[in-house]
Amino acid sequence: MPDDPASEILDATYRALCKHGYANLTLQDVAAEADTSKASILYHHDSKDQLFVAFLDELYDQFTDRVNAHDGETPRDQLEALLRVFLTTEDDSSQQAFRTAILELTSQAPYNSALQDRLSDFDEFLIERLRGILVAGVDAGQFDDAIEPTHDAEYLATTITGAHIRHVAIDRSSDNLYGTMTNYVERHLLTDTHPEVAQ
Amino acid sequence: MPDDPASEILDATYRALCKHGYANLTLQDVAAEADTSKASILYHHDSKDQLFVAFLDELYDQFTDRVNAHDGETPRDQLEALLRVFLTTEDDSSQQAFRTAILELTSQAPYNSALQDRLSDFDEFLIERLRGILVAGVDAGQFDDAIEPTHDAEYLATTITGAHIRHVAIDRSSDNLYGTMTNYVERHLLTDTHPEVAQ
Repeated sequence: MPDDPASEILDATYRALCKHGYANLTLQDVAAEADTSKASILYHHDSKDQLFVAFLDELYDQFTDRVNAHDGETPRDQLEALLRVFLTTEDDSSQQAFRTAILELTSQAPYNSALQDRLSDFDEFLIERLRGILVAGVDAGQFDDAIEPTHDAEYLATTITGAHIRHVAIDRSSDNLYGTMTNYVERHLLTDTHPEVAQ
Repeated sequence: MPDDPASEILDATYRALCKHGYANLTLQDVAAEADTSKASILYHHDSKDQLFVAFLDELYDQFTDRVNAHDGETPRDQLEALLRVFLTTEDDSSQQAFRTAILELTSQAPYNSALQDRLSDFDEFLIERLRGILVAGVDAGQFDDAIEPTHDAEYLATTITGAHIRHVAIDRSSDNLYGTMTNYVERHLLTDTHPEVAQ
């Protein structure tokens, strides 16, 4: 957690989101969390919208690090690790509050093209990472060559998105789904022999 | 479109949602659409929350009719019809405005247990219908008996939910996904021979 003013404002934005949600959040709430003034926030960001664009940019960096961190030895391991990260439920109430706020923010994207562009970047990055894993797996003979990486990556990413929404909006755990998707990978994506990847 | 006052209020709620979205919608907006007074709305519904519970109840009836209407001859046909209904994109701007409003409403579910209960009903109904189709397909020898209907139905419903969110929030068509899921059904759910269902 760096302590220059700009970073402190983004950290305070995270805490304010967890506490107040997105819909009713005011710059005053963020200022209170940052122990600063609304004028100081407006010095760094022109508006609430601009603040959230900057916030999503920072979140995007964390997101891509998180997606890339789960390497695994083989494409199969990488895919399994990604599914585990995105689908297993954490019993962390601040995490849940944050996801709820992000769902609110997502629901405003149709009205706000800057937010929509940022959220599209998350979606595209996840799909591209999944596609890369599937391509590598097919090349290595670990995944079935009947796979269509572009389409199957979109399918997996769409299911992950749906799992997040069901978890946040209607409190459905995605733990079962993690098992189902792992099973799907085992049964349908792996080749029958699924050899280890050539070194 | 019935014209008793209670139904007219719900019809007006639909139109007001399409016009104003959910987050900023006021009872006054609904009253204006219904060409009546806010007091008259409050005579039928105690609050905006109560109005939306009633609205979701009516929407649920339409949803279950829509899910059940797509019968098809065989379980495979039924599944294909359901996917087509839920995944193919309609270029209908009022439909898009309505889905956007429903996403906003969904984002408020974590803060409102009555809304959350209603939205859970939609989710459960869709999963149960999919499960029924999968069970019937396995029984008829049309679907692979390695299918786990409860888990696979949740998987399909979760993907459908994700497709709706990506369509509404970040404007991603689900047309490709419809092809991918149909392909998934063909490749992975059907038995190799997929005989016609026994009469």
